[in-house]
Amino acid sequence: MAIVTPLRAHPHNVIRDPERTRERILAGALREFSAHGFAGARVDRIARRARINKRMLYHYFGNKEGLFKAILSRKLGERLAWAAETPRDPGESLVFWFDITCRDPDWVRLLQWEALEGGPGTISREAERQRAFKLGVDQLRDRQAHGLLRADLDPRQTLLAMMALTMFPVAFPQITRLATGLRPKDPTFRKQRAEFLRRFAGALQPERARPAARGSAGSGGRS
Amino acid sequence: MAIVTPLRAHPHNVIRDPERTRERILAGALREFSAHGFAGARVDRIARRARINKRMLYHYFGNKEGLFKAILSRKLGERLAWAAETPRDPGESLVFWFDITCRDPDWVRLLQWEALEGGPGTISREAERQRAFKLGVDQLRDRQAHGLLRADLDPRQTLLAMMALTMFPVAFPQITRLATGLRPKDPTFRKQRAEFLRRFAGALQPERARPAARGSAGSGGRS
Repeated sequence: MAIVTPLRAHPHNVIRDPERTRERILAGALREFSAHGFAGARVDRIARRARINKRMLYHYFGNKEGLFKAILSRKLGERLAWAAETPRDPGESLVFWFDITCRDPDWVRLLQWEALEGGPGTISREAERQRAFKLGVDQLRDRQAHGLLRADLDPRQTLLAMMALTMFPVAFPQITRLATGLRPKDPTFRKQRAEFLRRFAGALQPERARPAARGSAGSGGRS
Repeated sequence: MAIVTPLRAHPHNVIRDPERTRERILAGALREFSAHGFAGARVDRIARRARINKRMLYHYFGNKEGLFKAILSRKLGERLAWAAETPRDPGESLVFWFDITCRDPDWVRLLQWEALEGGPGTISREAERQRAFKLGVDQLRDRQAHGLLRADLDPRQTLLAMMALTMFPVAFPQITRLATGLRPKDPTFRKQRAEFLRRFAGALQPERARPAARGSAGSGGRS
């Protein structure tokens, strides 16, 4: 039998496929950080999950912080790729990001741990993340310039609101359940939420994109 | 000196003022749960913070879970009282709850720990919380009936959206900073956010509350 499958149990197998080994470590680390946060994460549990010895893990990523930064970079890369595909219509864009968020609750949990554990000071991978947020703000400005979004809404505050609307139900599953009776994973909840987000965003279109407005006073159209 | 202030150092002082002792324990426990979550909270640290011995703490609250439930009940009571004072105008109501949330970040952190630590199953103090959410939904239905809020928005999803808009910046201070360059505690951020919430809510008013609408197609007014 050993002659038939000599590589399967070979201890240096990992060296022959470093890319797959890195991937396995990152996948194990994401689950560990998502479950226990940065402070609570244990490198030996990550190594066990990745079926690799701890020394090898340190060889690839330096230390726990290196591993965490590698995950952040990976996740930021994914999100930048998605950002390029964001639909122009604000309602469809909300549904698009809500869908991504529902499929990636580990990312939301990472951010939540970061919020609870992090001091008010430094933000990990700050420059990379600043660029991603700038891209989001620029996209909203473009929507405003093209009459798809009310021009009187501060685009940075709007970005924060868009993230709140798509991430909050996943970040606080207990609140989602208390408010709607459904879990965020429930397909019925997701359908209702997508429909809600479309209508909600519809309300954020500028007046001129709606039925022609006439008359005197009103709350809309401030600039 | 002992004759002048005999009660100050008296070991049974706590028994003479059980209400203040309870308050001191609850305040210490809130800080401890907010900092470390339920799993990470240590009863002896709470006792030390409250300047009381651990046995006395158990006498008042049973155990760590009893203490946590007492805090939840207290917080829910506060929130129900605030709910009764919620302004009718949806924009002012958002600003009102945003302001409360900014002044009570410990509550947001408790909910965040609950989200990270809690299984998908039971929710602590569920019946009490259900009632509070039902009140919130009823208030939104009332706003809809009185033409202050678009009638085509599901009130339960709207409640979830209102909580998202007010809580998210406090729950994720790092995202607030990345999106706006400001910390959620910064008075400039709070002012900008309040202004944004007013405009945002203005967009959610029904068409008839805006300048009289005429014409053909449009994205608003679906029902």
